[in-house]
Amino acid sequence: MTEHTTMTHLECARCQRSYDADAVAHLCECGSPLLVRYDLERAGARLDPGVLAGRSNSDFWRLHEVLPLRDPANAVSLGESVTPLLEVSTLGAEVGIPHLMLKDEGLNPTGTFKARGAVTGVSRAKELGVKVIAMPTNGNAGGAWASYGARAGIEVVLCMPTDAPPLSVVEADAAGATASMVRGQISDAGAMIAAQTPEHGWYEAATLKEPYRIEGKKVMGYEIAEQLGWRLPDAIVYPTGGGVGLIGIYKAFLEMQQLGWIDDPLPKLICVQAEGCAPIVRAFEAGADTSQPWPDAQTVAQGIRVPKALGDFLVLAAVRATGGTAVAVSDEPIRDAMRTIARSEGLFICPEGAANVVALPALLERGALDPDDRVVLLNTGCGLKYPETLSADLPVLDIGDRLPPARSEGASR
Amino acid sequence: MTEHTTMTHLECARCQRSYDADAVAHLCECGSPLLVRYDLERAGARLDPGVLAGRSNSDFWRLHEVLPLRDPANAVSLGESVTPLLEVSTLGAEVGIPHLMLKDEGLNPTGTFKARGAVTGVSRAKELGVKVIAMPTNGNAGGAWASYGARAGIEVVLCMPTDAPPLSVVEADAAGATASMVRGQISDAGAMIAAQTPEHGWYEAATLKEPYRIEGKKVMGYEIAEQLGWRLPDAIVYPTGGGVGLIGIYKAFLEMQQLGWIDDPLPKLICVQAEGCAPIVRAFEAGADTSQPWPDAQTVAQGIRVPKALGDFLVLAAVRATGGTAVAVSDEPIRDAMRTIARSEGLFICPEGAANVVALPALLERGALDPDDRVVLLNTGCGLKYPETLSADLPVLDIGDRLPPARSEGASR
Repeated sequence: MTEHTTMTHLECARCQRSYDADAVAHLCECGSPLLVRYDLERAGARLDPGVLAGRSNSDFWRLHEVLPLRDPANAVSLGESVTPLLEVSTLGAEVGIPHLMLKDEGLNPTGTFKARGAVTGVSRAKELGVKVIAMPTNGNAGGAWASYGARAGIEVVLCMPTDAPPLSVVEADAAGATASMVRGQISDAGAMIAAQTPEHGWYEAATLKEPYRIEGKKVMGYEIAEQLGWRLPDAIVYPTGGGVGLIGIYKAFLEMQQLGWIDDPLPKLICVQAEGCAPIVRAFEAGADTSQPWPDAQTVAQGIRVPKALGDFLVLAAVRATGGTAVAVSDEPIRDAMRTIARSEGLFICPEGAANVVALPALLERGALDPDDRVVLLNTGCGLKYPETLSADLPVLDIGDRLPPARSEGASR
Repeated sequence: MTEHTTMTHLECARCQRSYDADAVAHLCECGSPLLVRYDLERAGARLDPGVLAGRSNSDFWRLHEVLPLRDPANAVSLGESVTPLLEVSTLGAEVGIPHLMLKDEGLNPTGTFKARGAVTGVSRAKELGVKVIAMPTNGNAGGAWASYGARAGIEVVLCMPTDAPPLSVVEADAAGATASMVRGQISDAGAMIAAQTPEHGWYEAATLKEPYRIEGKKVMGYEIAEQLGWRLPDAIVYPTGGGVGLIGIYKAFLEMQQLGWIDDPLPKLICVQAEGCAPIVRAFEAGADTSQPWPDAQTVAQGIRVPKALGDFLVLAAVRATGGTAVAVSDEPIRDAMRTIARSEGLFICPEGAANVVALPALLERGALDPDDRVVLLNTGCGLKYPETLSADLPVLDIGDRLPPARSEGASR
């Protein structure tokens, strides 16, 4: 029987030490995250763009040769499929980037790209015999892991800040997670999970503290390349909290280079953060290899409120290696940007995704983006997940009253 | 060049009168809805299950021969793809129907199956040169049509009850619709739209008042058949408001029979309504061909709060022709059912979809379902669309506090 995956081992992202991929593993002895490695020569002998095109877009594991599952029977699914890469040329014309595209991760189960990490993370946890997963979350990862955990029959323990988005809290609670809130940041929740995990024997799945979440996220990189006919875009703009998606996309590009599937220069990877929590931006501007914890982090885009990311050095390296940059945006224009995108393209996206749009003028101005660039905006989730962010104040009529005219009629009436 | 569609004409669903498919059309002179007809012989010569399998699941128009668009350039897309048909065997074991499945329409753009109707409805409106679409809505259809309208550059005028789900109101407003609320039911909103449309020259797109929405909905029927290898399930359980999805699924089955793609007896089509608004159930039980307006309709499952459906006679005919039934459920267990499904399967579904689950014990008891039946539950939308329906009351900790133990630890500690 042909092996399902060509996974060979785990490798420390910093010191390259090797670990067994068939045992439970978290961080390297040096404290850094572990990355999954594959025999890409063997993978490439069985999988190429033509073979991939023949596999269903409704099958998350269509890239199984370069994903970490030994036995397909352990796959946990909520029906995820390839997410769309949409041309957003009306928005593009407004901002002065005609070749603007949006990768819409809001169509994943649970409404955000956190589902991707949960697919591989929970499936692999199941394969390794894990009974209880524990993790801190700003909300959406918790909702995703709780949901996939429920589907897999694995218990999930969550700790999140008291101001996590209420709907993701409800989602996690409904899925049966043992969830609690802490008067603090995700970093405080993370410290509590880390400190108390050993005595419980939980499987700690905080961002990058297990090696498999990133593998699900990297699929975004493969999909972008495939959807553009294996011609890479000039830039990918990514709202950055823990940064796993960006690290994963970069890992996918390096793998595709080794597989010989792509020749183009890699896209500029561009980090967007909020002015109220911009540790990566500050480190990038300072020329530092790692970030410093951001005190009293605050932003409406709660998914990117991560005061100190474990993978900061990987994010910074990927941004620099691709000629990208990092930029911080203020909170006020984010709500307006959500409305702009909804009105121009019909897309109701999350505040984190809208932060990308807010960043575009500054990126053009400083020359980080060229107006002719083919630019992909990574939208990490749907706006439905944040019902408190926008409001509507509609006219209220009695039965039989006159309706307001359409906008185009307004002027002439 | 091969024609994109084999659409031949529009036909009255009641009196069979014929109408030109290339002119704007609403109801028949007799007041009944119009259905789109195709040259299925020509369609079948170009499309069969094998050809279909070779077309991408990320392309809504993969069935274009039996969909109503003349020119693919008029297709309006927000990235919709084939939705998953998931085995829900944990839930199935709990309710005593081992072969239980769920078609998850919550993964459509805008979070509900209303997107399907908007894809074909708005695309076709664009093809016909429509500038302003007007419609009443309970919320989700308005969100979908406003979003697809924005994507198409078509204005949308909406009128909805004051107690429409707030998030769908925000969604429609953000997408730039001219929306108002009325102190009444969707039927009151519909009467206002109908009365005021002529003077404005709007294109009225109330349920079944244009022929194309149903064509998008029918794709669910094709997908269910394809996903089960062209072996039909024994029953499909459907939360019924306007009933367009059920009418569409039935139309798809009849088309597939003519195309020679299916041999099985058709699935029992089973209507689920709320006790606070059950006109179809009452008509079914009375042996009537049409329903009577339901006074003071109320239910937590707002999407199925339709006091009188224009297509009621089509729904009743489809239910009877397939040996199905109609059943009403009370509101109280719906929230519990949402939690049950989330905990057992990781699926956070909408109240309408949860109403299906509430109906199962009664359907088994009265013999409308057999425990051995292969049953598909049609979930019409994601739970995220109804953030006010469930709540969570989590323990709040200070930094460093002890976390609550996992459930499995609870007993032993």
